[in-house]
Amino acid sequence: MDHYLSGLTENIKKRAILIKLIITDVDGVLTDGGIIYDNNGCEYKRFNVKDGLIVNLLKKNGIKVGAITGRDSKVVSDRCNELKFDFHFHGIKNKGGKLLEILEEHGIEPSEVAYLGDDLIDLPILTRVGLSACPSDALPYIQNHVHFVSSLKGGEGVFREVADLILESKGLLSNIIENLVHKGHE
Amino acid sequence: MDHYLSGLTENIKKRAILIKLIITDVDGVLTDGGIIYDNNGCEYKRFNVKDGLIVNLLKKNGIKVGAITGRDSKVVSDRCNELKFDFHFHGIKNKGGKLLEILEEHGIEPSEVAYLGDDLIDLPILTRVGLSACPSDALPYIQNHVHFVSSLKGGEGVFREVADLILESKGLLSNIIENLVHKGHE
Amino acid sequence: MDHYLSGLTENIKKRAILIKLIITDVDGVLTDGGIIYDNNGCEYKRFNVKDGLIVNLLKKNGIKVGAITGRDSKVVSDRCNELKFDFHFHGIKNKGGKLLEILEEHGIEPSEVAYLGDDLIDLPILTRVGLSACPSDALPYIQNHVHFVSSLKGGEGVFREVADLILESKGLLSNIIENLVHKGHE
Amino acid sequence: MDHYLSGLTENIKKRAILIKLIITDVDGVLTDGGIIYDNNGCEYKRFNVKDGLIVNLLKKNGIKVGAITGRDSKVVSDRCNELKFDFHFHGIKNKGGKLLEILEEHGIEPSEVAYLGDDLIDLPILTRVGLSACPSDALPYIQNHVHFVSSLKGGEGVFREVADLILESKGLLSNIIENLVHKGHE
Repeated sequence: MDHYLSGLTENIKKRAILIKLIITDVDGVLTDGGIIYDNNGCEYKRFNVKDGLIVNLLKKNGIKVGAITGRDSKVVSDRCNELKFDFHFHGIKNKGGKLLEILEEHGIEPSEVAYLGDDLIDLPILTRVGLSACPSDALPYIQNHVHFVSSLKGGEGVFREVADLILESKGLLSNIIENLVHKGHE
Repeated sequence: MDHYLSGLTENIKKRAILIKLIITDVDGVLTDGGIIYDNNGCEYKRFNVKDGLIVNLLKKNGIKVGAITGRDSKVVSDRCNELKFDFHFHGIKNKGGKLLEILEEHGIEPSEVAYLGDDLIDLPILTRVGLSACPSDALPYIQNHVHFVSSLKGGEGVFREVADLILESKGLLSNIIENLVHKGHE
Repeated sequence: MDHYLSGLTENIKKRAILIKLIITDVDGVLTDGGIIYDNNGCEYKRFNVKDGLIVNLLKKNGIKVGAITGRDSKVVSDRCNELKFDFHFHGIKNKGGKLLEILEEHGIEPSEVAYLGDDLIDLPILTRVGLSACPSDALPYIQNHVHFVSSLKGGEGVFREVADLILESKGLLSNIIENLVHKGHE
Repeated sequence: MDHYLSGLTENIKKRAILIKLIITDVDGVLTDGGIIYDNNGCEYKRFNVKDGLIVNLLKKNGIKVGAITGRDSKVVSDRCNELKFDFHFHGIKNKGGKLLEILEEHGIEPSEVAYLGDDLIDLPILTRVGLSACPSDALPYIQNHVHFVSSLKGGEGVFREVADLILESKGLLSNIIENLVHKGHE
């Protein structure tokens, strides 16, 4: 955690301050890339509580949250519903095309979108949005194409770090912390 | 494990020696923050045997153990029952308020309570009790508000380290170890 | 990830450029070696999405993919089917003998085969094929007998690294990346 | 893996060469200490394939294998049966007493026994047998009481390292490796 939010340079801050929508890939970003199977063909995935806890705070502050994934998985769809994502699309092979649809539907600019991804299929979006990010264990040729490489691996809270970075850039995070600390001494 | 109990400074010792009750958050403290789901909506969590084995020893030595969690999960409730926690409250959004109720019911002072937490929701308690602690992978802005940052990540035995620290401060741990070593040579 | 593909020396490149078939062990290579059981005798394994995503790209570029495993497990068989492996043999104790059968059936030379393994049972193949590789957490006496030690542990994407290394040696990977980046700016 | 078997000093070698029986604790040694639960009270544990693969080789070379555990778990019992352990006792609170029974029944000396454990309950055995070992993430006050601290964490193949160390001390491991390498070039 030594480098958490240490990537918050002036360039990143300038980009983060504009964000109105965070879109995330799921496998390898919200999870550690693990796909667990059992004898009976049942599928399991491991998410991180840290990522989930910030979604509500993002939405309260007017930032929408969505997911675009290449695979089609009920586990992922259930998790997105539980976290009350504004939208989530699964089994999307052409992620770049899907982004265009979303921009039009929500009437927002690429510069107002942050995207988190970790593999080849994410490159067409990562190279197009205002703020692109990947986990620290994303493939090196993905890391070379994003604005922000997280200090964390997939499944360790990468989404949370990007969300914190955006909230901090907008001057919101410090206030939230101060209020909660103060609450302990009312 | 290089730094295990190395946080046992005079200040921490002075605080630990007073503790009569340890309260812990669950996700990210007793677990690594992982929330595992399957196709059928079943939920799984991974606890650590090291944390469980010390609860009995704490209670034998007059230290109570409880949990306050923000989420509501049957898995967590079952684990707390298995470990014979003195109390456990789930789905608590206002943790600071819950602490006040517990203090009154048990007739103890904040200085006699240790609390382990790792996220924003824990701040109102962490900044109020006699001894506050968090895992080494807690968010940096949580680490900045506790007395003791564990040498371990969530799910690696953070609760055990704080329990060991308290037992050691009270002069109990060394005795327990000596007795067990001696038992091998009766 | 600092050393990803850094093992791509001239010697490895010379070997990788010839590969027409990648065969992999499963436990400890495609997985982290974990064998998870429950109360009811059900078995679970954790694969990595990064490994799966490259299989299609290998096959599109004329490189076949197969598995030979020492254990017999339905979970593994199901995963190999899902990834559309060209073949997969399970419960094979004499892996060296099985390799000979496969070479004959596919009419290819040992120099055209890459093999990934991590334990004693894999040694008869590892010391025979054109390009041998193991995870970074393979036993040291296995690491001493392979051409390429991955920068990753079992289950972290070792197969993906070897696949990327082969595609890169053949001059294919950079093109794929360029096309996807370009797609984002059409 | 840099230090694997690097603990094979003359003192350890002298002890290891005498071993006829390896007894192991399970949680935190054969596993990473993780106890996974689901909604329905079902319990899951994660073992390592590396540990299992060496049991057969130990038994072929006249070294018996057993387990003594403090908890009572069907998952553990099933795994011990699968690996064809010579014996396994569960829910044992007085491990020192159980060791005495086993020594008598098998007619062997403490100096001929290796024991792997990681917690307080293991101290009465660890301080009594010919060769005691623990994982690298065992509690520091356990590490201080064993002959050999593994280079690996619980669940990463600690049992395998101790087994390899014993086989190597007896001059058996190098032969096994040579035979398998040679097999690849018959």
